[in-house]
Amino acid sequence: MNENSPLKETMKNQKKNSYTIFGINNAISILETEKLQVSKVDILKKGRAEKDNQLLHLISKLNFQPKFYDKQGFFQKYADGRTKGIAIVITDEVVKDRLPEFSESESVCLLALDQIEDPQNFGQIIRTAECAGIDGIIFSKHHSSPITDTVLQVSQGAFVSMPLYEVTNLKNEFNQLKEDGFWIIGLENSIDAKAWHEIDYKGKTVIVVGSEGKGIREKVLETCDFKATIPMQGETNSLNVSAAVSAIVFERLRQIQESK
Amino acid sequence: MNENSPLKETMKNQKKNSYTIFGINNAISILETEKLQVSKVDILKKGRAEKDNQLLHLISKLNFQPKFYDKQGFFQKYADGRTKGIAIVITDEVVKDRLPEFSESESVCLLALDQIEDPQNFGQIIRTAECAGIDGIIFSKHHSSPITDTVLQVSQGAFVSMPLYEVTNLKNEFNQLKEDGFWIIGLENSIDAKAWHEIDYKGKTVIVVGSEGKGIREKVLETCDFKATIPMQGETNSLNVSAAVSAIVFERLRQIQESK
Repeated sequence: MNENSPLKETMKNQKKNSYTIFGINNAISILETEKLQVSKVDILKKGRAEKDNQLLHLISKLNFQPKFYDKQGFFQKYADGRTKGIAIVITDEVVKDRLPEFSESESVCLLALDQIEDPQNFGQIIRTAECAGIDGIIFSKHHSSPITDTVLQVSQGAFVSMPLYEVTNLKNEFNQLKEDGFWIIGLENSIDAKAWHEIDYKGKTVIVVGSEGKGIREKVLETCDFKATIPMQGETNSLNVSAAVSAIVFERLRQIQESK
Repeated sequence: MNENSPLKETMKNQKKNSYTIFGINNAISILETEKLQVSKVDILKKGRAEKDNQLLHLISKLNFQPKFYDKQGFFQKYADGRTKGIAIVITDEVVKDRLPEFSESESVCLLALDQIEDPQNFGQIIRTAECAGIDGIIFSKHHSSPITDTVLQVSQGAFVSMPLYEVTNLKNEFNQLKEDGFWIIGLENSIDAKAWHEIDYKGKTVIVVGSEGKGIREKVLETCDFKATIPMQGETNSLNVSAAVSAIVFERLRQIQESK
């Protein structure tokens, strides 16, 4: 990328391609994949990371040495409390801006996020989706949380094996995916929605969830073939969006496992 | 409670019975129930809470006036960023230390937490469980996160209608519940575990989940009638405990809805 660009707008739209990520699980996932360029590893002396043999073994395969810091030095650099004694910098692009051709595979499932704003929720969703066998996450470029250090951090290493597609227009992508044989299922509490477990997720599907407060935008919702709802059983009426994602992606997994 | 107790240990074991909670959803849930004693309401002038008519109507029914603060005064008192312009103090006990007799109701389901340490997870679990129609949460007194302001905060008002039982010995409680006709189901990735959707949750059940790192303790696991596992589909092997709870409590709800 051209750092001398005179156009502020261009600068703004440039993708971030350096991420600082903490924690042993994250570091192991990043180092194990060998697909991401790691440019720095900082370790707290006598911290938990320094005692983790699996981690140290992976670090020993890098073509540079990690730096070791005492407490004062480490926490001066990394004020965040959740480091577990390791910070790792990757200099690589973790976001794709174009969906691949999906093969004739029978049960591809993509998750689409329409304007999820909270990085914690975004990270949790990546983690849950990866555990449930989702094949990729599409998210809208505008009015969404971008992929930040926090998003990757919270995903606990799951971002390494979960394709993340940032697109400018969800509706256009859905129309293309429909031509390729996908069914689009919106998770939305509307009058014509079916209970989430009454929908068949076994084929090629896109599951769409909306923002924390406002749900799926009307124009995006119009492109959905089905609407699914999770009816609330209590007094409060607010299921966290990442909890809703967990309910629906594991319902899909149940259907696939039971059909075998 | 006796504030003049000379015994430090007694002080330490006394239940907390004053909670400061932020946010509009939380405040509405607390005020609507009319079951909790509210001793203070602080509002930020020109903040979001001051413009919420439903909230203001509920506050007008209290037998005292809320205090209004300008920005400087409010944020000096409440540094937390997520206040949404309202802080509410309840002076009441939200934890019960004894389980009630459960009637002959056909499908009571309790969730049991064995040493959940993270208040964020605890709060999310309360919120998810309430949405899925769980009848109460049992948690171990020792080595667990106690009910803190953060736990209640994160539950987004769900704690108001979710009975929370703090017990000293989970195993003893389970043995009593078994005598009362409950089946105990432990969510644990062990060799003799069935897939989570192969277990029948429609009767009187207790679903047990363990701590974030260590799972369910061996002695507690021994009392389980069934073990359920959620098999991981990806490279990472770490589903967040609140996401796992969501998958299992909504599987239970599916079974109940489909049997009707």
